Amino acid sequence: MYQSQLFTKTRKEAPKDEVSKNAQLLIKAGYINKEMAGVYDYLPLGLRVLSNISNLIRREMNIVGGQEIALTALQDKTPWEKTNRWNDEVYDIWFKTKLKNGTELGLGTTHEEPLTSLLKNHIHSYKDLPIYPYQIQTKFRNETRAKSGIMRGREFLMKDMYSFSADQNSHDKFYEKMKKVYLRIFTQVGLGDKTYITFASGGTFSKYSHEFQTISEAGEDTIYICDKCKLAVNKELIKEQNTCPECGNEKLREEKGIEVGNIFNLGTKFSDALDLVYLNDKGEKQKVIMGCYGIGPSRLMGTIVESLADEKGLVWPTEIAPFKVHLIEIGDKPEVQKKREEIMAKLEKSGVEVLCDDRALRPGEKFADSDLLGLPLRIVISEKTLSSGDFEVKERMGGKVSLLKEAEMFDFVKKYK
Amino acid sequence: MYQSQLFTKTRKEAPKDEVSKNAQLLIKAGYINKEMAGVYDYLPLGLRVLSNISNLIRREMNIVGGQEIALTALQDKTPWEKTNRWNDEVYDIWFKTKLKNGTELGLGTTHEEPLTSLLKNHIHSYKDLPIYPYQIQTKFRNETRAKSGIMRGREFLMKDMYSFSADQNSHDKFYEKMKKVYLRIFTQVGLGDKTYITFASGGTFSKYSHEFQTISEAGEDTIYICDKCKLAVNKELIKEQNTCPECGNEKLREEKGIEVGNIFNLGTKFSDALDLVYLNDKGEKQKVIMGCYGIGPSRLMGTIVESLADEKGLVWPTEIAPFKVHLIEIGDKPEVQKKREEIMAKLEKSGVEVLCDDRALRPGEKFADSDLLGLPLRIVISEKTLSSGDFEVKERMGGKVSLLKEAEMFDFVKKYK
Repeated sequence: MYQSQLFTKTRKEAPKDEVSKNAQLLIKAGYINKEMAGVYDYLPLGLRVLSNISNLIRREMNIVGGQEIALTALQDKTPWEKTNRWNDEVYDIWFKTKLKNGTELGLGTTHEEPLTSLLKNHIHSYKDLPIYPYQIQTKFRNETRAKSGIMRGREFLMKDMYSFSADQNSHDKFYEKMKKVYLRIFTQVGLGDKTYITFASGGTFSKYSHEFQTISEAGEDTIYICDKCKLAVNKELIKEQNTCPECGNEKLREEKGIEVGNIFNLGTKFSDALDLVYLNDKGEKQKVIMGCYGIGPSRLMGTIVESLADEKGLVWPTEIAPFKVHLIEIGDKPEVQKKREEIMAKLEKSGVEVLCDDRALRPGEKFADSDLLGLPLRIVISEKTLSSGDFEVKERMGGKVSLLKEAEMFDFVKKYK
Repeated sequence: MYQSQLFTKTRKEAPKDEVSKNAQLLIKAGYINKEMAGVYDYLPLGLRVLSNISNLIRREMNIVGGQEIALTALQDKTPWEKTNRWNDEVYDIWFKTKLKNGTELGLGTTHEEPLTSLLKNHIHSYKDLPIYPYQIQTKFRNETRAKSGIMRGREFLMKDMYSFSADQNSHDKFYEKMKKVYLRIFTQVGLGDKTYITFASGGTFSKYSHEFQTISEAGEDTIYICDKCKLAVNKELIKEQNTCPECGNEKLREEKGIEVGNIFNLGTKFSDALDLVYLNDKGEKQKVIMGCYGIGPSRLMGTIVESLADEKGLVWPTEIAPFKVHLIEIGDKPEVQKKREEIMAKLEKSGVEVLCDDRALRPGEKFADSDLLGLPLRIVISEKTLSSGDFEVKERMGGKVSLLKEAEMFDFVKKYK
């Protein structure tokens, strides 16, 4: 894509009403726009990142047998009353609205109740289990304070998978598998070395649940890390469990963390309340055992900004970058433009997504914008390139600059496909 | 995918609380689930169709230079008050809700106001125009009655593109281009021969706006068709324009229609109210000229069901079918299973999406379900197939059955990729 056609513009100054690094940088770079606190529009570059994150997660969900669905935002109160999560005094994060006839509705913040209800039409026998429906969909949460940019949204994107299993053993196996899947996802988006599986309280049906916490100064949570086992305990649980749950290590290191994912054993909490049963091989009624598995793609995007961006701007891991290569044209000589077209066509033909800065701006402005946008590779084309045959290739992450001949340059870029 | 793993089940009977053909069939076939009137969940097969429709539209929007964004559902009232569309007595389709501090918010039913507002940060000069942002996103509409299944949703998917042009000439050219793009989209989803570009009232800034109406008994609109020009006039406009606007033909044919798309000249209505200006090449302030272009993928999906389904069930055009081939295994002989695996692998390798009915059911039940699900091609594998070498291939649309040798069968299926 040509940058002269991209409708978003960068800003020199960060917006004054934002305190979080992620919102400041993403607005400055034209990736998002603020509607109100905790409510952000995604502009072309921002939506490309968010979609890349969603697609990466989708791929992993499909590998473990996930079946994608899309439940509604508008929620009827009936199933929520059965689980005692409708009353605002018990569950205080609802946005509520009304039909013309006065019927009260809620805006979905999670979907255990409607999904459990609808599956009564589809689960009858043990042969129908296990199943793993999931969705990547907008959720609403009436936060009192929303000062963390896209990390704590009143409206945000969520991937929520739910598991429905016939027995505890089958459930436990899937739950363990999902721990590995989650760590693989966080590694792919560039947070692997900073993200810890974190023990949290488990509720009625299991001793523990698990959070995935990324260490960050911007974190709203506190976690206690066992460096031997590369895991952590969260603040709530540390009161009763002040050693490593795996090795008993007493020397736990305190850090701030951002919760980028969580997985819960739900046991029969929802199948009890909403009567989701199946017949086992003896024809006996049994309650379905459930789990849920959440990752917020928008929160994850914010966390990546908090973790990887530097003083010059955004830094995107290749997997989720809006484009892989930022091709910067210097000067307006026809032969430079011709070479630019040739290189762009060749890169795109080989499957590399290119943003080409063809704007009539000074080199310094283009380089500053390039650092701010944060694409993985910057390649400069100028008269100098044409005469010397050397292409300047800069890696945004780490800042390494290489001078490469044309064939070497194409070879180098291949890694960024 | 194996049908034994698909978590949705078909139903023998249509739900009694649905009067529309589209909702009855889609629920019977397990494509959607009703949360309440006008509010439907999309289950795996339904979501695949909806995503295919969205992707087809997305492709066409990108070809004309569209840049995809995602604006929020939660809406601040400020810009809506400036255009006088906040007051429920003037604009009576809002769902409204509140922040914890009592601030009133609306749920977006369209996005002219927030988009025009945010573009004030990105449009400064005539060089920044034209631009064509669009989104494919969930909208909310507080309908009093919602009895038409997914054709009239209280919560529904919408593709809305907005054009921002420097002058009337540039706007008009794009508007004309979009007419052709829209007709191409309706042709690709199988509604080409039933869909008419329909003249409607134009409002302040132009004589006409244009609807795209698909002829259907289920239509809520009435249109008047000129068979010479293959266009129509809608019921509102016919009072003042009772002949064909192109050829003057007085013999117009009355039909019921479903509005599957619409395009509007917005002129400077929103740029006046919200002060969206640019500087022309003389440095003078000018108002931006706008247009909007809508298609609802969920309504389109409902219209396709109303138009193409028959008494046996759904019928999907290849472009948007959830899978292209329904491979039906008859009997449980190991050699049949082996052949099924071989054919499925070969089809999937060549890029054909296959749903394989590997369930232990009687052939009659499988065939009935296959007709209900409506995939374009049904291929049967049985002991008979193995001994004769003839594969029975049935086209769902039209019902034609062919007996083909294996190589011929693969050749035949290629068209359905």
